Amino acid sequence: MSSIDTALEANKLFALDYDPSLISPRPRLHLAVLTCMDTRLSRRALGLGPGDAHLIRNAGGIVTDDAIRSLLVSHYLLGTQEFMIINHTDCGLMKATEEELHRTIEQRAGIPANSPVRFHAFSDVEKNVREQLRKLAEHSWVRTETITIRGFVFEVQTGNLREVS
Amino acid sequence: MSSIDTALEANKLFALDYDPSLISPRPRLHLAVLTCMDTRLSRRALGLGPGDAHLIRNAGGIVTDDAIRSLLVSHYLLGTQEFMIINHTDCGLMKATEEELHRTIEQRAGIPANSPVRFHAFSDVEKNVREQLRKLAEHSWVRTETITIRGFVFEVQTGNLREVS
Repeated sequence: MSSIDTALEANKLFALDYDPSLISPRPRLHLAVLTCMDTRLSRRALGLGPGDAHLIRNAGGIVTDDAIRSLLVSHYLLGTQEFMIINHTDCGLMKATEEELHRTIEQRAGIPANSPVRFHAFSDVEKNVREQLRKLAEHSWVRTETITIRGFVFEVQTGNLREVS
Repeated sequence: MSSIDTALEANKLFALDYDPSLISPRPRLHLAVLTCMDTRLSRRALGLGPGDAHLIRNAGGIVTDDAIRSLLVSHYLLGTQEFMIINHTDCGLMKATEEELHRTIEQRAGIPANSPVRFHAFSDVEKNVREQLRKLAEHSWVRTETITIRGFVFEVQTGNLREVS
């Protein structure tokens, strides 16, 4: 059975106990978290339950245009007031340069990219978090006088979050 | 106490029981899920545990360039073989047009955007899922002969996933 079919079977059981009145689409803690898609990061690492926060996840926890779009929707439409940006140690994007990633994937795919991809590879995780904070604050609709924005590194060896100042 | 400080306190407890050997960065089910940041969607709705899958989340579950970047990293670097694209009913992006979103946010922010934002508003969720599947398959590095890609609507009233064909 494919993993998707396994997930669909599990969803049938999930739906039996599902109560739509329990979770508001407006995050209870007025919090949005931008972090990596990595398996080792989860809501549990922050003590967050269902309904507490928006979780925005991409490769690396990078402040891309898409992440900014999501954070703007989160704040202006759904009332979040605090943004956490979390990168992590041992990230896949730290293991190769931009050029190496392009070369590897082009070889594996056997075909050039028909649309450009920038992977946002990085080598220094703390510096990378600072760079994401800087990019976010640059957008005129991210009003730092009304939104609290803080950056963190998640240490995959210890499970600890470390603030980047 | 701010929500971020509450999350940091919870993280201290989380780290006490954290064992880095338990979760591989390579998703156990070789699965990547692209879905919305919405509070009502979660790993639990798919029966997924820690380490099972990559979760990629943005406003709407939209196949943006950033989502494609993340899915490419997921497949080529971390071995996922199946992609689920999930949009959901009652999505914030269905409640206003692109123009209305821009007008609302510009008024609230009190300043024009200094960098363009496309919100990817939509009105028909099934049609939107089909559009995301189409965009994903258009990238030459998303090789549909080796990656299974399926699209779904999550019904927030029932908790059920419905496949879009």
